[in-house]
Amino acid sequence: MLLQKGEKLIMIGDSITDCERKHPYGEGLFAGIGKGYVSLVDAFLQSTYPEKGIRVINMGNSGNTIRDLKERWATDVEHLKPDWLSIMIGINDVWRQYDQPTIRESHVYSEEYEATLRELVLRTKPQVKGIVLMTPFYIEPNREDAMRKTMDEYGEIVKRVAEECDCLFVDTQAAFEPVLREIYPATLAWDRVHPSVVGHMVIAKAFLATIGFSYF
Amino acid sequence: MLLQKGEKLIMIGDSITDCERKHPYGEGLFAGIGKGYVSLVDAFLQSTYPEKGIRVINMGNSGNTIRDLKERWATDVEHLKPDWLSIMIGINDVWRQYDQPTIRESHVYSEEYEATLRELVLRTKPQVKGIVLMTPFYIEPNREDAMRKTMDEYGEIVKRVAEECDCLFVDTQAAFEPVLREIYPATLAWDRVHPSVVGHMVIAKAFLATIGFSYF
Amino acid sequence: MLLQKGEKLIMIGDSITDCERKHPYGEGLFAGIGKGYVSLVDAFLQSTYPEKGIRVINMGNSGNTIRDLKERWATDVEHLKPDWLSIMIGINDVWRQYDQPTIRESHVYSEEYEATLRELVLRTKPQVKGIVLMTPFYIEPNREDAMRKTMDEYGEIVKRVAEECDCLFVDTQAAFEPVLREIYPATLAWDRVHPSVVGHMVIAKAFLATIGFSYF
Amino acid sequence: MLLQKGEKLIMIGDSITDCERKHPYGEGLFAGIGKGYVSLVDAFLQSTYPEKGIRVINMGNSGNTIRDLKERWATDVEHLKPDWLSIMIGINDVWRQYDQPTIRESHVYSEEYEATLRELVLRTKPQVKGIVLMTPFYIEPNREDAMRKTMDEYGEIVKRVAEECDCLFVDTQAAFEPVLREIYPATLAWDRVHPSVVGHMVIAKAFLATIGFSYF
Amino acid sequence: MLLQKGEKLIMIGDSITDCERKHPYGEGLFAGIGKGYVSLVDAFLQSTYPEKGIRVINMGNSGNTIRDLKERWATDVEHLKPDWLSIMIGINDVWRQYDQPTIRESHVYSEEYEATLRELVLRTKPQVKGIVLMTPFYIEPNREDAMRKTMDEYGEIVKRVAEECDCLFVDTQAAFEPVLREIYPATLAWDRVHPSVVGHMVIAKAFLATIGFSYF
Amino acid sequence: MLLQKGEKLIMIGDSITDCERKHPYGEGLFAGIGKGYVSLVDAFLQSTYPEKGIRVINMGNSGNTIRDLKERWATDVEHLKPDWLSIMIGINDVWRQYDQPTIRESHVYSEEYEATLRELVLRTKPQVKGIVLMTPFYIEPNREDAMRKTMDEYGEIVKRVAEECDCLFVDTQAAFEPVLREIYPATLAWDRVHPSVVGHMVIAKAFLATIGFSYF
Amino acid sequence: MLLQKGEKLIMIGDSITDCERKHPYGEGLFAGIGKGYVSLVDAFLQSTYPEKGIRVINMGNSGNTIRDLKERWATDVEHLKPDWLSIMIGINDVWRQYDQPTIRESHVYSEEYEATLRELVLRTKPQVKGIVLMTPFYIEPNREDAMRKTMDEYGEIVKRVAEECDCLFVDTQAAFEPVLREIYPATLAWDRVHPSVVGHMVIAKAFLATIGFSYF
Amino acid sequence: MLLQKGEKLIMIGDSITDCERKHPYGEGLFAGIGKGYVSLVDAFLQSTYPEKGIRVINMGNSGNTIRDLKERWATDVEHLKPDWLSIMIGINDVWRQYDQPTIRESHVYSEEYEATLRELVLRTKPQVKGIVLMTPFYIEPNREDAMRKTMDEYGEIVKRVAEECDCLFVDTQAAFEPVLREIYPATLAWDRVHPSVVGHMVIAKAFLATIGFSYF
Repeated sequence: MLLQKGEKLIMIGDSITDCERKHPYGEGLFAGIGKGYVSLVDAFLQSTYPEKGIRVINMGNSGNTIRDLKERWATDVEHLKPDWLSIMIGINDVWRQYDQPTIRESHVYSEEYEATLRELVLRTKPQVKGIVLMTPFYIEPNREDAMRKTMDEYGEIVKRVAEECDCLFVDTQAAFEPVLREIYPATLAWDRVHPSVVGHMVIAKAFLATIGFSYF
Repeated sequence: MLLQKGEKLIMIGDSITDCERKHPYGEGLFAGIGKGYVSLVDAFLQSTYPEKGIRVINMGNSGNTIRDLKERWATDVEHLKPDWLSIMIGINDVWRQYDQPTIRESHVYSEEYEATLRELVLRTKPQVKGIVLMTPFYIEPNREDAMRKTMDEYGEIVKRVAEECDCLFVDTQAAFEPVLREIYPATLAWDRVHPSVVGHMVIAKAFLATIGFSYF
Repeated sequence: MLLQKGEKLIMIGDSITDCERKHPYGEGLFAGIGKGYVSLVDAFLQSTYPEKGIRVINMGNSGNTIRDLKERWATDVEHLKPDWLSIMIGINDVWRQYDQPTIRESHVYSEEYEATLRELVLRTKPQVKGIVLMTPFYIEPNREDAMRKTMDEYGEIVKRVAEECDCLFVDTQAAFEPVLREIYPATLAWDRVHPSVVGHMVIAKAFLATIGFSYF
Repeated sequence: MLLQKGEKLIMIGDSITDCERKHPYGEGLFAGIGKGYVSLVDAFLQSTYPEKGIRVINMGNSGNTIRDLKERWATDVEHLKPDWLSIMIGINDVWRQYDQPTIRESHVYSEEYEATLRELVLRTKPQVKGIVLMTPFYIEPNREDAMRKTMDEYGEIVKRVAEECDCLFVDTQAAFEPVLREIYPATLAWDRVHPSVVGHMVIAKAFLATIGFSYF
Repeated sequence: MLLQKGEKLIMIGDSITDCERKHPYGEGLFAGIGKGYVSLVDAFLQSTYPEKGIRVINMGNSGNTIRDLKERWATDVEHLKPDWLSIMIGINDVWRQYDQPTIRESHVYSEEYEATLRELVLRTKPQVKGIVLMTPFYIEPNREDAMRKTMDEYGEIVKRVAEECDCLFVDTQAAFEPVLREIYPATLAWDRVHPSVVGHMVIAKAFLATIGFSYF
Repeated sequence: MLLQKGEKLIMIGDSITDCERKHPYGEGLFAGIGKGYVSLVDAFLQSTYPEKGIRVINMGNSGNTIRDLKERWATDVEHLKPDWLSIMIGINDVWRQYDQPTIRESHVYSEEYEATLRELVLRTKPQVKGIVLMTPFYIEPNREDAMRKTMDEYGEIVKRVAEECDCLFVDTQAAFEPVLREIYPATLAWDRVHPSVVGHMVIAKAFLATIGFSYF
Repeated sequence: MLLQKGEKLIMIGDSITDCERKHPYGEGLFAGIGKGYVSLVDAFLQSTYPEKGIRVINMGNSGNTIRDLKERWATDVEHLKPDWLSIMIGINDVWRQYDQPTIRESHVYSEEYEATLRELVLRTKPQVKGIVLMTPFYIEPNREDAMRKTMDEYGEIVKRVAEECDCLFVDTQAAFEPVLREIYPATLAWDRVHPSVVGHMVIAKAFLATIGFSYF
Repeated sequence: MLLQKGEKLIMIGDSITDCERKHPYGEGLFAGIGKGYVSLVDAFLQSTYPEKGIRVINMGNSGNTIRDLKERWATDVEHLKPDWLSIMIGINDVWRQYDQPTIRESHVYSEEYEATLRELVLRTKPQVKGIVLMTPFYIEPNREDAMRKTMDEYGEIVKRVAEECDCLFVDTQAAFEPVLREIYPATLAWDRVHPSVVGHMVIAKAFLATIGFSYF
């Protein structure tokens, strides 16, 4: 596995990452790490490699877009000096275009999204051992759905930036595909966005596969 | 894996099982299944075998001993007609002997524990495809600790009943051993009993191994 | 308009109807009539025909299926001796099949739905001046979506029963079509079921058109 | 209808306008627009002209008088650059004279009311497509009632300013007349000021008539 | 003064009487007697005649009509064996006709009101030293107001019963007249029914005058 | 009566005065004036002389000593420009010496009390029509009780200052005497300090007598 | 010390005993034993004689009089089969005579008090190793105070019954004397009844002295 | 006993000291001193030596380490000018190393602990009559337990500093030994750190022994 003894992993993102984490730092006793995929990733790491003492910090903030990440990048990423960094952002950038279409100043369109993501990655790449870029996703199996289409477009941007900047890449939307073939979205997420533990497990497993985690 | 398409698994126990599940039945939307190892087991099953439509119901009740399980066995196990049943009980049977030693009527000593467990298992065995017996555990690495010693004795009883009655067996205490060699109990559970997600992952992985679950 | 001076209209259904109404009877001061389409229908009637003194009672119950309506039909409809009755039911009958697929006893399949609806309508028809049957709906524009398909099937049943039993008929799903061509579902309802006031206005206007309401 | 595709309407006022809106901006998901006539106006506009994408923002503040509007005019009206603006203010200006007669500094007498209203209208008129001035009202049918008399006087001021400044005009008090002939005030508003949904529908219909809204 | 040493006075009525009294018996420490006119009457009696040890019990229930008084007459009046009894009822009997006109079963019309009041008074008269009948009131100075007119009619009934049955009589509506000539209703009661302490003082003083209380 | 049409009376003090008043100014709707003797004084004034429009403002603050009054004198008395002012202070100055004897910095001894009271009275006297000085009191009939003795000493100071500075004077302790001869302190105040409504009536009556109030 | 290894002590009484104990049995984790003198007695016993495993159960109920004790004697004392029993009752029996003098049915006068206490003691004496009778007390140093006088009378009754029935006796009032000579009642108890921890320590030490407890 | 009439004792520490004390100063009515050993020490002092008027102030803060004490030393110790000072700190300094091992910046290692403790003691020694140094403790009887070992090491440091700086010394860990031989930790403290009243009594008795307190 890529993470070594004593290393620090920061996972940043939006409400899918946040999941009731402790503020200002998402770690420590009494579920400080939140209740979502970050908590599952940490539980896998600690229970399988207890001797490594890996430190995972959840820095997700509910409602965030890439614009918000940029604003808090210095305090919430750089000052914490992570060895590894994961970023999963973009759901709100897209969602606001579909759930409050008239409030245009809350939309983050694809040009801004791509430019800002690239900027943050390039700025931080030299200071860490590795960055894991995770696509945003939408728990909607119909690829012709308008919001799903836009989300796929943002997922393509993440993939492109990951390749260009030599980052690890997790296609969370692809990870949901086999599950969505069998289970209707309403079972997985009341709003097609915030998943149950089943959905968080899908994300965690996809992340773990990317960092070379072994279950045994 | 042992569980087949459309089958129903009931997991019964105490607060380690309960974990804020919905009452009277621990399943359904909005974390009806609770937030502990049962939720993790379910998340593994649904995300890996979405096509099987396995139904997992959490029937744990906080504070229960084997004496309480016996009292609600008809309504909470038999009437629900499970295909598979897991039982993890005994922590409170032992704990009360150590945290309120003078209140003797709250203690369930080993004879009663063994007799009741055997009775319930024999009574239900013919009606299900399989029973998984899980030992109670104590997140205390010192085998000479008085309460740990008693808990190990109860774990031995579970093992004996499992063998006698041809049940599947999960040694949760053994599953914690490699973790406890590296991580101090205070990190895993404030009271050495109620684990963080890390501890629940340990239990879930041990259960999954026993039922032949494959991560890929 | 069909409703005459001093007549009583009961509107029964599920959470779309309920909307925080007062229990046991949804009428009276301080929003006793709830905050959904029933409230809008009442506001139209009272503000346009204040001299008629029409009495509207909201008898919707959150989470109800046709099975629940049958159980409370005597106390919640017949004993109240309405002059007019509207029924909008079926969303939960369908939804449970899609949001908790393994909990099969909570599903109401189409045969039971149709038989029960017909039974209740035939039983009450002779005692009232008229019954308005409203289809259940799903705020999802994709007609190939699995749950939308099933909802359309239940809508067809409502239409069939309305024709057979000589009831007034409101096609709420059809009423949503022009809006859904322009506005994405996420703007109208976080879960594609419980609409904002915009959605309730769509339903209210469709109901009013059916009873011959004139805005001037 | 006067409002065109993509235009923005701001509705400002006191608690009749506010109705639990979101702060600082009364729009967006989960009833951000409040629960009063503004919400009804928006629901009519979105459900009838979904293709127009009109943006309605509720900027009402409970307890406000014209004096308060003036204080927040720059931030709450001008900076938001509306295309259309509606103002309904004056109820508290009058009410305080009658419910706390000895606290004279809380009263806004008619001279100040008229001067301030004219000032705000003249200042903003050039920047918008149109301003809708709505009279304050009192749900009291007795024209000889002292507070009703004063309210009518303020309504006259609104009418005068509307004519002088070439604004659209809504006479809400007049809109209540036919309803008050049939329904006693206590049914419409516990304090003769804050109406039920019926009363908000009266206001919304009067507003819609003024802006040329068609129900079909 | 009419009340003698050690005598017990029960004051029964609706919310004007209740005012957050203790249940089931409105007396005792920590404002058990409520915060309305009953509390003021008691305070006058205890502070002026401390040596008399008069016992005052508040038996008002919010929302009550004469119909409700009849139902609880045995337990709430007769079993308590008062020496003196005051009754102020009728506001809700009238109000419901005006604030929920379509819910006719909640109205208590004048025939029922008069018959029930007379029945209760005649039944209890022989068991007590005296009964004080207090009119209901409406804080509305306009005698042509529809609800005020009806309230006056009920007040006439109280007066008639008092005379016929030889009871003490308090005309609370008359007591409010001089105040209403100077102070607008909104200052005295937000709903023209539930008075501020000023209004309760008006009632208390009228009651005290009737029982021959002397302030010095 | 001393107070004339349109005049303003400020009553300042400690928790006996405060009684849950509104902050920062104790007046206005919904019991802004609190629930103690100030409220009773106001209720007497408004109900007996409604035509005078006298304005009473409660400026009591719980826990205050004369030291606290001095600190807020400018904002809470002078800036409000009262016509009349009443002061009842000293209970906490004394009480702290008896309920937390070791916390000496919380005690206000008699020298400081007298000097500060005189200073405030002399400073404000020229700006008002009259000042009413009310003694602090202790609901303890035993004049040999240590705290009662000290309270009497502070009462003497108030009397002395009143005479020297030509203020109106209310001896509240004396007003309690006849009541305390008949009623045990525990009935009047759980802590012998915070009275029930009976006690507040005693204070209000004493105040009213001093300002020449007539009950008829 | 009188209490032997494994023996059970029940302490019954009113709110002074209760002090937020767990119901129905005042023992066990998380302060089940309450926060008053019972908790202190238990803490002394467990910390000084940990090897004895003495079981202390708090059965105090707030507001109780001897009349209430009699009613629950079978379930709350006899069924629990104590080895030792302490009773401290009478404060409410006396207090109600002084804090709600007109509510005479709440008073327990001395004849009933003495008779009931004797009856309960005689009934239980044969079943236990010993009974400790504790006087009620009043934190008032003035022996001429009316309520103190009555309390002393009840204390005399306790003493008499203790002597007659051969019980251990604790004079709690006497135990408070040296403290009351130095500390004013307001420091010890806001209402002269419910003591601070200092007062509970006084009671606990008096009890311990009686049962022969040694601090070393 | 060492403490003399009128002297002031400050007890500073972490949550074991704090125990819900009042902030900013832990003294005064209504359990301002908290509910732990400080409250017991105070209760012993006041009930046994009421004539001394000793002032005890609880300055414990939950979660504090020696690093936190240093930060608030000026305001929370020096400015209060105590005559006597007790310090019990170090539990969190050690605990964080064991309950959140990866969050290294929250650990206070022994070098820093010793240096800071010595610095604070030397700085304050000249200003007070005496300092009582109390060891931190861990309610774990197994001396080989990793965290117990570290805690013992910190206890050794306290002892060394006490000897070097001529302070009074309380070995709380030693005081727990006889109790821990008989009672399992789970009875005394759910987390082996925060004791029940029994544990606080152990600490209080050890402190009292050191200052020469006599129980009689």
